[in-house]
Amino acid sequence: MEFEEHVQSRQMVYQGDLVQVERQQVTMPDQTTATREIVRHQPAIAVLMVTPERQMIVEQQWRAAVNGLTLEIPAGKVETGEDMNAAAMRELNEETRLTAQHLEVVAEFYTSPGFTDEFMKLYVATGLTPVTTKLPQDPDEQIALIKLDLPTALEQVRTGQIQDAKTVMAIWYWQSHPELGVEA
Amino acid sequence: MEFEEHVQSRQMVYQGDLVQVERQQVTMPDQTTATREIVRHQPAIAVLMVTPERQMIVEQQWRAAVNGLTLEIPAGKVETGEDMNAAAMRELNEETRLTAQHLEVVAEFYTSPGFTDEFMKLYVATGLTPVTTKLPQDPDEQIALIKLDLPTALEQVRTGQIQDAKTVMAIWYWQSHPELGVEA
Repeated sequence: MEFEEHVQSRQMVYQGDLVQVERQQVTMPDQTTATREIVRHQPAIAVLMVTPERQMIVEQQWRAAVNGLTLEIPAGKVETGEDMNAAAMRELNEETRLTAQHLEVVAEFYTSPGFTDEFMKLYVATGLTPVTTKLPQDPDEQIALIKLDLPTALEQVRTGQIQDAKTVMAIWYWQSHPELGVEA
Repeated sequence: MEFEEHVQSRQMVYQGDLVQVERQQVTMPDQTTATREIVRHQPAIAVLMVTPERQMIVEQQWRAAVNGLTLEIPAGKVETGEDMNAAAMRELNEETRLTAQHLEVVAEFYTSPGFTDEFMKLYVATGLTPVTTKLPQDPDEQIALIKLDLPTALEQVRTGQIQDAKTVMAIWYWQSHPELGVEA
């Protein structure tokens, strides 16, 4: 592969609870050397939930990285050994107390491949009904649930009230699939 | 603000070239304590460039974090003190040797607010013409340019050939604005 870089050496320079940072010395195709810094993070899932009333569910929560409140679709890290679909259903239960009859992956992507290996699958969930068994919630998270229709969601992207990449992405997907939720 | 957390102490635990990692001890609204880990990163811009022939420009490049080739719209970090619009025009010049008559912000977002403060603006650029003055290119980057029409781009999201969040987002924006490029 003409662009391929070869790792000459690697060093784990930070081992945190949420992320690990690795530094690599790499040889580029023209044989010059460069340094690469990589933030390792667990894979994650995110879910565009659309109700039969054509409303999406977003969560308002405090984010330390942003030092403020955000509006985000339900999302979370995949646990070690956990199937991604199972992680999506678990997060729906923990965060919204709903389950979905229909759960479909609509995109798979790296959240910011210039510096991190965090890999995410975006699901669409429809046919929403209350769960019968409630899973324990994360005590570190305080979340308020809000429902938005499509015009409001689009407006909140335009005005900057919604500033989360996966949520913007989900809203623009929904814009091209306005039938979501109704058919379920 | 009912969800607000208060930072009790903070420590810079890793100082890299590309990222810095900070650990915080925070007090939550219920007065319990939690640890937060934040990856600090420069703000960034990304540009959906659409030609009058209704093709978008994507870059193929090697990404160490992904250990493989990616297809991404032109993007880059904003330099310290640099205006974000100026950064967008600079990246177009450096990476595609084009300039844009029309440059518009269509969304502003955090790429992954659960762990990083990286903030990005997504632009749409139309009215593309070759630059008259070529800015120096980054020797650490080797890039091939590829043009895609909308049906092909959507198909490459579906098949997983395109796996970059900002690029998926841009393609879904374009799907709802198929007139882009033509009017310029």
